Amino acid sequence: MLLIKVGGSAGIDYDAVCDDVAALLAEGQKLVLVHGGSSQTNEVAEKLGHPPQFITSPSGYTSRYTDRRTLEIFEMVYCGQMNKGIVERLQQRGVNAVGLSGIDGRLWQGQRKKATRAVQNGRTLVVRDNYTGTVEEVNTGLLHSLLDNGYLPVLTPPAISYEGEAINVDGDRAARATAVALHADTLLILSNIPGLLRHFPDESSLIRHIPKDELESYEAYAEGRMKIKLLGAKEALEAGVGRVILGDARGANPIRQALAGAGTLIA
Amino acid sequence: MLLIKVGGSAGIDYDAVCDDVAALLAEGQKLVLVHGGSSQTNEVAEKLGHPPQFITSPSGYTSRYTDRRTLEIFEMVYCGQMNKGIVERLQQRGVNAVGLSGIDGRLWQGQRKKATRAVQNGRTLVVRDNYTGTVEEVNTGLLHSLLDNGYLPVLTPPAISYEGEAINVDGDRAARATAVALHADTLLILSNIPGLLRHFPDESSLIRHIPKDELESYEAYAEGRMKIKLLGAKEALEAGVGRVILGDARGANPIRQALAGAGTLIA
Repeated sequence: MLLIKVGGSAGIDYDAVCDDVAALLAEGQKLVLVHGGSSQTNEVAEKLGHPPQFITSPSGYTSRYTDRRTLEIFEMVYCGQMNKGIVERLQQRGVNAVGLSGIDGRLWQGQRKKATRAVQNGRTLVVRDNYTGTVEEVNTGLLHSLLDNGYLPVLTPPAISYEGEAINVDGDRAARATAVALHADTLLILSNIPGLLRHFPDESSLIRHIPKDELESYEAYAEGRMKIKLLGAKEALEAGVGRVILGDARGANPIRQALAGAGTLIA
Repeated sequence: MLLIKVGGSAGIDYDAVCDDVAALLAEGQKLVLVHGGSSQTNEVAEKLGHPPQFITSPSGYTSRYTDRRTLEIFEMVYCGQMNKGIVERLQQRGVNAVGLSGIDGRLWQGQRKKATRAVQNGRTLVVRDNYTGTVEEVNTGLLHSLLDNGYLPVLTPPAISYEGEAINVDGDRAARATAVALHADTLLILSNIPGLLRHFPDESSLIRHIPKDELESYEAYAEGRMKIKLLGAKEALEAGVGRVILGDARGANPIRQALAGAGTLIA
């Protein structure tokens, strides 16, 4: 089982991703696709007059401030525009894709973080109207039932809280939880950079291989979102996923290239 | 099997619809829910700078002009905002809902109408960049697999063409095709009016009962969208659905009220 997460940053070539997905499935590869939509969400939120806002945690992680209106816009883009756009592309390539959010069938369940600590202008605040959380349980029954019937699950945030509220969750970590739950051998995380760079943003400084036991010593090279990607990789490996690959989705054959060694392999 | 279609017009109380759905399921009623989203789509399309446009056919039916950008906005609202909003409400009421569009798993398949004749200022034009069609095939295998596993399917346009393009389809007629395919005994169509009115818009002139054989003599009372609803009702009855009910979704217990005789019963 191969778990592919394709991000939502600018520059990602979804047609190329879908080409590779269709080719791999035709070869008999078992896989599940997870996608994001952050860049489109920012654009639509601006146009709808509710611009995106971000929160930085005391430990330095940045995440989207998700009030109810933001959540609604988030769902419009992730579950509507992006998810159906990818499902349509796959259908055109002969793949019987089924798009689901984490709310559907309680596919991704977790606890809502009712109070989020945020640092603003050097002061720490507590944000309470934030609909965010982390995926703790994956409904593998629903996924297996789709896979066994020949459908390709195409999954996207939000997830759902135990109280039934939609919650924004990090897509990489949701993909990781899904990879672990499905006992995937490979978790492939595609975004708009080649992988972990020794000298960010110099793409020629790509780190090709990180031995699992030395992951911590590479954390110093991670900038911005890459920190969460490395954290997710670590969690995935510790939970039994065989290898994590960080790959580039901006060109042709992004999945094949990454599986052939073009990105950063953590194993 | 009860097939419920809830429209997308202004004034519909989705909380009340979901309350009734949860109560009926708890009583053991088998059902599937189909929904629309036209009013919200108009609003979002305006805000995104791509205002809605409508086409009137030579026979007098009005439908949304759906170019690719409109289709994208349509999917944002129907499959994102509306579908996930209804699924979330149902999950909060203990119903394990799964939201799908007609693209997912080729749930609703049909032919794209590549050329649409439209009347504008008294002249007949041919519109070619319109992504519309009619549902001809329903993937009942996917629906049964969800129903058998305890999930409630919550379905929404668009559908998919045989070539794999997303196509805008009339929600009432998609619901009718689904009711027929699932051998539903009842097709309940909820909107923001009480049913067929003898003197539109006088709500006290509600027609409570239309014998199946006399349906054509009532067509004269139908205004606007009601024409398509009656046409759909006729097709449903001819294809084996036991009864069609037109009901009002603006108040409490809309489904129970309609099943108890508050709307227009066609049987």
